[in-house]
Amino acid sequence: MSMAHFEIDTPALLIDQAALEDNIRAMRDLCKGFPARLRPHTKTHKSPLIAQLQQRAGATGLCCAKLGEAERFASAGLNDIMVTTPLVGQLKLERLAALIPSVNMTVVADNLAAIAPLADVAHSAGRLLDIVVEVDVGQGRCGVPPGAAATAIVQEISRHPSLRFAGLQGYQGKLQGLVSYEERRRGVKEAMEKLQTSADDVRRAGFDIRILTGGGSGTLPIDLELGVLNELQPGSYVFMDASYIQIGWDADGNPPPFRSALTVLTTVTSRPADDRAVVDAGWKSVSCDSGPPIVKDRPDLTFEFAGDEHGIVRDRSAGPLDLRLGETLELIPSHCDTTVNLHDRYVVLREGRIEDTWDVATRGLSF
Amino acid sequence: MSMAHFEIDTPALLIDQAALEDNIRAMRDLCKGFPARLRPHTKTHKSPLIAQLQQRAGATGLCCAKLGEAERFASAGLNDIMVTTPLVGQLKLERLAALIPSVNMTVVADNLAAIAPLADVAHSAGRLLDIVVEVDVGQGRCGVPPGAAATAIVQEISRHPSLRFAGLQGYQGKLQGLVSYEERRRGVKEAMEKLQTSADDVRRAGFDIRILTGGGSGTLPIDLELGVLNELQPGSYVFMDASYIQIGWDADGNPPPFRSALTVLTTVTSRPADDRAVVDAGWKSVSCDSGPPIVKDRPDLTFEFAGDEHGIVRDRSAGPLDLRLGETLELIPSHCDTTVNLHDRYVVLREGRIEDTWDVATRGLSF
Repeated sequence: MSMAHFEIDTPALLIDQAALEDNIRAMRDLCKGFPARLRPHTKTHKSPLIAQLQQRAGATGLCCAKLGEAERFASAGLNDIMVTTPLVGQLKLERLAALIPSVNMTVVADNLAAIAPLADVAHSAGRLLDIVVEVDVGQGRCGVPPGAAATAIVQEISRHPSLRFAGLQGYQGKLQGLVSYEERRRGVKEAMEKLQTSADDVRRAGFDIRILTGGGSGTLPIDLELGVLNELQPGSYVFMDASYIQIGWDADGNPPPFRSALTVLTTVTSRPADDRAVVDAGWKSVSCDSGPPIVKDRPDLTFEFAGDEHGIVRDRSAGPLDLRLGETLELIPSHCDTTVNLHDRYVVLREGRIEDTWDVATRGLSF
Repeated sequence: MSMAHFEIDTPALLIDQAALEDNIRAMRDLCKGFPARLRPHTKTHKSPLIAQLQQRAGATGLCCAKLGEAERFASAGLNDIMVTTPLVGQLKLERLAALIPSVNMTVVADNLAAIAPLADVAHSAGRLLDIVVEVDVGQGRCGVPPGAAATAIVQEISRHPSLRFAGLQGYQGKLQGLVSYEERRRGVKEAMEKLQTSADDVRRAGFDIRILTGGGSGTLPIDLELGVLNELQPGSYVFMDASYIQIGWDADGNPPPFRSALTVLTTVTSRPADDRAVVDAGWKSVSCDSGPPIVKDRPDLTFEFAGDEHGIVRDRSAGPLDLRLGETLELIPSHCDTTVNLHDRYVVLREGRIEDTWDVATRGLSF
């Protein structure tokens, strides 16, 4: 453990700043020579500071999942924002109206009934609002079915002078973590064929499609190669979830060009048995939606959740443990997005020394 | 849906104030006539305001899981606090030293090596520190094994004039949610027998045991009846998890005297198919560690998680749904503690009207 760890109370959310910078640089390099624009998803890091690093490395605009996040990013000076989930309800629309005058906002819609209210908002704000229509390309969540359904919404958008049809969104999150490159590629091709049927129908109806947006960190090389999407929304590459690190990146079986940059520092607070150590990180410090975290640099150890504030660490071969009371371990989250959302700040380290602390500025802004 | 719902943007954490007050009153009434003191666990609600309601209804002191919570409760004027997890590490001890002079602090230990550092802290703070020794009564987490192991720690405590041995803690969280009263009662009896073997050994060594602490909302009637514990730590009764509502409370199969007081308000933001509605609450608004939430007053509906910010609602019989875009639903969390920890504030309702908003003051204070 580095000396900085003695200055950090636990559990704490750590960023390895060199790894973060390398990841952002690697993404810039990957996208070089491809026409697709990079619009990173900020739901992973929830930090305007990291968004600014991404912008400086060639990103054009950013994605937020929720309006509350968009408001906070806008107040930090970021002014090209797409909200990737539908905004529904009078209170949301009033807040959107307040944002439109100063921010280039793009919002997603997948329902005819949502269009007129959005048009009213844009009209009253006196600024054209860009609308992307979401197509369900296999996720089984939001979005109209592939084919003609998108065109009906596009036609409705075109009836409102305060709105501008910007394009289509097709995101298949379930593909992102597939370990097999071939499986992932097959899945992306299927998803893109679905998106194309909608795009073809929209174009046949006489509409121009400016943006085809989607993609994620796991499918990125395939998204770039296929070239259907012209705007990519990867988020996780800045930090890399534990499972993402292990996927086959390309046909040659290379690892991803990104590495783990986010950990949760935790302390051994109990050694009740030779084969069991209890650490001070549980469900309130590390998310469990995608399984347990892995213990960094200790493949011999396993972590299991043991309540809100406890985790149990064991030797993988069920043997005795060499962990002392007070010793610290770093956990690589199985899902960085939801783990980050549990913490109010990052401790930023470079070569094991504390460089800075950064706010998780949009933590909890799910509304 | 009540009219107040139109004034609340979603997702939002709602308290039914009448239900909360009823639950706090019901707990006071349950404990009447029993000698055990009530020291509610605040890890559920993370709110000094609710802790004060509990104190006014007869609670003597409170429990926190972490020192960060204790610091915040202390700054709100609550001054009899037990931290129920071991405090290990120099930074933690320095923070503890700052608390001791103004707060009646009790801390838990389960390791010989932890005692001398705690004694130093208490000595330098110039105030006696109460130590409770944790016994593993079946949880398989922290705590020394039942029997003689506790006595060695008690003896070590007795060597330090700045420390006072207060008693033993024995908590069996895995029993709390058992649906069958008989099974739960059998489990509690076993756990209490384990605690008794430690208590007997400590007493035989000549030490007085002031506190036997443990118990939770699910085992409360059994803990009261058996009378082994003289201090009880229930937390969840203020809100009641979805599963807790359904346990058999007593031998006659009655339901618990507590009812659901906490929900997450969510909006239908997409109706992509007749049999599927998407709502704006996912892993970042409702915790999943104990399964999906249930939809309040709509036993015909199911909720499944669909990502950070999405949930999918379906008809239980897979039929078409009657939910409109923009309609709101209330979700009863499967685990209130971890759901509360995702939100910064409560919206407090009485008869469907907004009464107040309360801070989730110790949200994220897991360190």
